[in-house]
Amino acid sequence: MYILIQKKGKMMSRNAIVLGVDPGSVITGYGIIQREGRASLLLDCGYLQMSSSKHIAERVHTFYTFFEQKIVQHHITDLALETPFCGVNPQSFLKLGYLRGVLYLLAQQHNMQLHEFSPSEVKQTVTGYGKASKEQVERMIMQLFPKLPIQKKKDVTDALAVMLCGLWQQQRPVLPMR
Amino acid sequence: MYILIQKKGKMMSRNAIVLGVDPGSVITGYGIIQREGRASLLLDCGYLQMSSSKHIAERVHTFYTFFEQKIVQHHITDLALETPFCGVNPQSFLKLGYLRGVLYLLAQQHNMQLHEFSPSEVKQTVTGYGKASKEQVERMIMQLFPKLPIQKKKDVTDALAVMLCGLWQQQRPVLPMR
Repeated sequence: MYILIQKKGKMMSRNAIVLGVDPGSVITGYGIIQREGRASLLLDCGYLQMSSSKHIAERVHTFYTFFEQKIVQHHITDLALETPFCGVNPQSFLKLGYLRGVLYLLAQQHNMQLHEFSPSEVKQTVTGYGKASKEQVERMIMQLFPKLPIQKKKDVTDALAVMLCGLWQQQRPVLPMR
Repeated sequence: MYILIQKKGKMMSRNAIVLGVDPGSVITGYGIIQREGRASLLLDCGYLQMSSSKHIAERVHTFYTFFEQKIVQHHITDLALETPFCGVNPQSFLKLGYLRGVLYLLAQQHNMQLHEFSPSEVKQTVTGYGKASKEQVERMIMQLFPKLPIQKKKDVTDALAVMLCGLWQQQRPVLPMR
């Protein structure tokens, strides 16, 4: 799927291809975007679904193989992740750690630049308001990418939101001052 | 370092080489033992120290590379880990998840059999008492391996304890019954 986004602002000298991931032990959303001059091109997006009946070691391996293929295929240069928020269930937090550990490893193995953003930074970047609701983030992403398939929308839109943070972080439009 | 342990009980048909790991984001203890007939040979033990000033992604990569080398060098067949106990600090639990995720990945990549033991199973196996103190486990390990170097002793003895669980799990001495 190819979607063009118009972007204003100072161009980065580096030709970045950013992978944004929203990892989950069952559903992991991802998006891959390439900067091309003043525009950006969404190269790929979707989700990886892993069976919860599989042992976590098998899921970790599936996760590694899936993202390694994406990284090689699209020549990813940058990885964007949201910093984890510790929920009520420590076991979920541990499983999230397994997958994030794999992403850290891939970032190092493939010389990717790693960017991490807090949940409020992601909301601020996408909606302009750090305390925006999840629905507002989702609506904003759907406006930017109107042709997105709607299945597993939430997991994919969360990944696209953090991907945009990785893309825009050094490229925000700046108004000239006297 | 080579130390011989006398073992009784039924021999396993498989010639296992067990890696036991006690992962930590700064110090990780490990032990590698090989079953040879009725005896077992400690092939290697020690610890990996990683600087806490390095980014966790770099540490994850160092950890992966270190253990991949050990696995290849010693032809490891089995990986033994202790199931994690969730302490008070969720961030530590997350970091533990990063390293355990890497170990899960290596287990799959190198077709190792994975064994996990609860803290009480480890204590039961090594001391015969599931609520034994950490000091008792350490003393027992030092009796079994009297030539262990004493630096970072606790981290190494914890790894050797879980390694022994992996080694002995199907090989416990059984008294015949009428």
